[in-house]
Amino acid sequence: MPDYPTALGASTPDTITLLGRDLAADVMGEVGFGELAFWLATQRRPAPGEVRVFEAVLAALADHGFTPTAIVTRLTYLSAPDSVQGALAAGLLGGGSRFLGVTEDCGRFLHDVVAGRDPLPCDDADWDELALETVRARRAAKQLIPGLGHHVHKDGDPRTPRLFEIAAEEGLVGPHLSLFAAIGRVHPAVLGRTLPLNGAGVCGAALADLGLPLELLRGFALLARTAGLIGQLAEELRRPVANEIFLSVDLNNRSIPPVPFTDAGTDGGTHG
Amino acid sequence: MPDYPTALGASTPDTITLLGRDLAADVMGEVGFGELAFWLATQRRPAPGEVRVFEAVLAALADHGFTPTAIVTRLTYLSAPDSVQGALAAGLLGGGSRFLGVTEDCGRFLHDVVAGRDPLPCDDADWDELALETVRARRAAKQLIPGLGHHVHKDGDPRTPRLFEIAAEEGLVGPHLSLFAAIGRVHPAVLGRTLPLNGAGVCGAALADLGLPLELLRGFALLARTAGLIGQLAEELRRPVANEIFLSVDLNNRSIPPVPFTDAGTDGGTHG
Amino acid sequence: MPDYPTALGASTPDTITLLGRDLAADVMGEVGFGELAFWLATQRRPAPGEVRVFEAVLAALADHGFTPTAIVTRLTYLSAPDSVQGALAAGLLGGGSRFLGVTEDCGRFLHDVVAGRDPLPCDDADWDELALETVRARRAAKQLIPGLGHHVHKDGDPRTPRLFEIAAEEGLVGPHLSLFAAIGRVHPAVLGRTLPLNGAGVCGAALADLGLPLELLRGFALLARTAGLIGQLAEELRRPVANEIFLSVDLNNRSIPPVPFTDAGTDGGTHG
Amino acid sequence: MPDYPTALGASTPDTITLLGRDLAADVMGEVGFGELAFWLATQRRPAPGEVRVFEAVLAALADHGFTPTAIVTRLTYLSAPDSVQGALAAGLLGGGSRFLGVTEDCGRFLHDVVAGRDPLPCDDADWDELALETVRARRAAKQLIPGLGHHVHKDGDPRTPRLFEIAAEEGLVGPHLSLFAAIGRVHPAVLGRTLPLNGAGVCGAALADLGLPLELLRGFALLARTAGLIGQLAEELRRPVANEIFLSVDLNNRSIPPVPFTDAGTDGGTHG
Repeated sequence: MPDYPTALGASTPDTITLLGRDLAADVMGEVGFGELAFWLATQRRPAPGEVRVFEAVLAALADHGFTPTAIVTRLTYLSAPDSVQGALAAGLLGGGSRFLGVTEDCGRFLHDVVAGRDPLPCDDADWDELALETVRARRAAKQLIPGLGHHVHKDGDPRTPRLFEIAAEEGLVGPHLSLFAAIGRVHPAVLGRTLPLNGAGVCGAALADLGLPLELLRGFALLARTAGLIGQLAEELRRPVANEIFLSVDLNNRSIPPVPFTDAGTDGGTHG
Repeated sequence: MPDYPTALGASTPDTITLLGRDLAADVMGEVGFGELAFWLATQRRPAPGEVRVFEAVLAALADHGFTPTAIVTRLTYLSAPDSVQGALAAGLLGGGSRFLGVTEDCGRFLHDVVAGRDPLPCDDADWDELALETVRARRAAKQLIPGLGHHVHKDGDPRTPRLFEIAAEEGLVGPHLSLFAAIGRVHPAVLGRTLPLNGAGVCGAALADLGLPLELLRGFALLARTAGLIGQLAEELRRPVANEIFLSVDLNNRSIPPVPFTDAGTDGGTHG
Repeated sequence: MPDYPTALGASTPDTITLLGRDLAADVMGEVGFGELAFWLATQRRPAPGEVRVFEAVLAALADHGFTPTAIVTRLTYLSAPDSVQGALAAGLLGGGSRFLGVTEDCGRFLHDVVAGRDPLPCDDADWDELALETVRARRAAKQLIPGLGHHVHKDGDPRTPRLFEIAAEEGLVGPHLSLFAAIGRVHPAVLGRTLPLNGAGVCGAALADLGLPLELLRGFALLARTAGLIGQLAEELRRPVANEIFLSVDLNNRSIPPVPFTDAGTDGGTHG
Repeated sequence: MPDYPTALGASTPDTITLLGRDLAADVMGEVGFGELAFWLATQRRPAPGEVRVFEAVLAALADHGFTPTAIVTRLTYLSAPDSVQGALAAGLLGGGSRFLGVTEDCGRFLHDVVAGRDPLPCDDADWDELALETVRARRAAKQLIPGLGHHVHKDGDPRTPRLFEIAAEEGLVGPHLSLFAAIGRVHPAVLGRTLPLNGAGVCGAALADLGLPLELLRGFALLARTAGLIGQLAEELRRPVANEIFLSVDLNNRSIPPVPFTDAGTDGGTHG
């Protein structure tokens, strides 16, 4: 028989362990939820400072009001109120490249620059040099820089300086955040205009500095969003708007003629 | 134009607020993730003791090893590694009546008994009386009691006494937990055998005592599970087993004749 | 090793079979898609008349314009254009009790009445008698009758007489459709007003008469809707509206104060 | 108020139209399901030959036995039997780059080669020349050729010649199929070995020749698979295996020690 090992949850008739600890005695009541999520993802118990940075990232990404994901969860719950899991899953499915992807894209982009670089820059001037080279190369390749620019917070995303501050307080500014900060300083000279470092991007940098798996950075944005979507459902229960949103679209439903075509099959369908 | 109010996330070019607070200044770095999830769901900031009970529940439900939801997430990631959101959503879709539903069912069941009862029982003897009446009524109606019994932990689920203990430490044993405990004491006299109060059930009782919306109790189980599924994906990245699981099913694929039938359409399909 | 039999798809290096037939030689080019879907669900090849009724049902359920499911699919595609599977899955998740459930509810309801009844009524007068008894019993139990009534087509759903007509042409009016028709005739005398037999309901009756599994009647509505949602995505590609829908909700986003509360935790969060 | 036009489904109290036709009179009973799916996606009614090729593609992709998607749907139904929509959606979420993506990748790849080429090759020798150039360019760029090779059908995928045959019978061999066939003829000379043209690839070529939107080729594979997954659920109802699959994984669950780590947070978690 095949044998599938796991270091996560396991149980016998008398015991339940999680990550090799006694779940009841050593995890419940002792480990916060953000801490546990970090631990599950890395199989390494984080230090309190790491938990604080991690939870700051989750807070930054939890809810942004009526995003498409929030609307989707509310509409799905309207249609299928018997399935909370379906409403949450539907909302998470919008967590792809465009809306929640910046966090992952930015973390990976920064990692591609710093990975394997030895020694790493050791002061701001060195980071600025590396950042300058990086921004120039992206510009030459006509590629955008992930994490740079925001359609609303044009003069600065308030989450960005705050996350730098928290990471600095905890001694957790690593190479990804350092490079991201340097990009913020040097890009105007190359691009000819000043763009903000956005919140999703700085979150990606911070998660990468925490050593979380790059393939799953989007997953942490989704974990944060799950809490936000539950908040959306709770608000929908107290103050429903999904039906009104639906009707605002549907009542405007004006039938238009289909696109012009040569009706090749007019004379006979399959059952004609 | 319609107008959709929300008290969750909101932003202007200069500010981002969440739950009416300044996200960067007052939430990031100040509010833990479990605390934030509670706050989003209730629009009420929980006290530290409430957070501790809530996070103990989330820990209890986060991961149980190779459950169907864990296998589903790993197999979906194997098939579509470009979509972490799809792998997580697929896993959550198993969070229905059978595997994750006990938490919600138990919370609702207890609530149906205590809701509107005034005054509530004020000591164990009174709770035992109410519990006895409740268990007898379910038995007479040939209905199971949610949260009672476990297929593995037949002599006691270790999470149950621990969660009662934590709730007691925090002064948060309310009517739902009280009734659940009483059911644990009195059911043997009615049912003729002793069954354990299971962990999913006690979690539902604790969440209901915290005042979380009953309609969304399953949602908190899903939030906990999201963290667990990210852990499953992280482990899959380090030590893949999904392909082996798939092959263990598929290599056994033995084609069998379809069920016997009268082939009414043998002489002509739609394109015959 | 365990051994999982299936009569559906199977392959060897040289052959591919589906439902026990040679896929390339006997299915491709020979079996229409509606016919194949029926065959997969029943493991019985349907007669041409059965295919015609089945496909009429699928046509009736494929698309109803800007339903919540259609909006959800378009918004999810807007957010995550890299994942067509996510956009379709999100739309299908709205296919629950409220919007797509009538088909299944009606089929099951009719089945509960006729199942095991031997002999079945043999003429309209007998069916009317059974229908009268059924409608009275539901009314006495204060239960609605699935498939009766429509919020838009108050004077009659055009799909209903047409599906009866097609079933009659194919000699496929069985007990479920017969009872449903009788309910249409007798309910005004009991309820004191005339309600239309709706299209979703008659589809459920027709699917039940075709012998399709009752547990999966909702599945056929979802199959039909999958085709509709692909149509929605195709139209979105040619003439996008999802971003405009999103903005019509979000631009109206007016931050409101959270619900009043006693801020039990003001003095200290988990990181205070 | 915004105004969202659609040419798909629309209704008034008295009428229901689909694609500008009267749904009851002109679509139900007159239009097959494959035909309707094509029509919805293109807003052009297909000719009977186009329907036959399209439905042959859907048949080729509907079910391949115990694929990960099939296992996922069965396991999700085991966990949450109340939500057929969740079980189907979970299965579809595996329809990503690896398992169902070849159809789309191959169609796009062929399209990139032939798009804008004027005049197109007009005989096999010309197609072979273009194919040779294409295969050489991919090899030089160290890129695989989508649709070439199969892990089981190493000596030929039986679906491929059959789909070419059907397309030829219907006069629907266009540039995509022509180029794909030429790649099959010329690649051994470049690659030094003979690989089969696989079924998923030829389906992508055929769908592209039918003028279906390239962005949605994966969507048609998902439509086909939806029918297959309903078949899987129907079989699961009659002959359940999901619980046995689950247990074959879980009973092998052998707890292993977590990966070694420096337990930075041993001395105090967030609630320590």
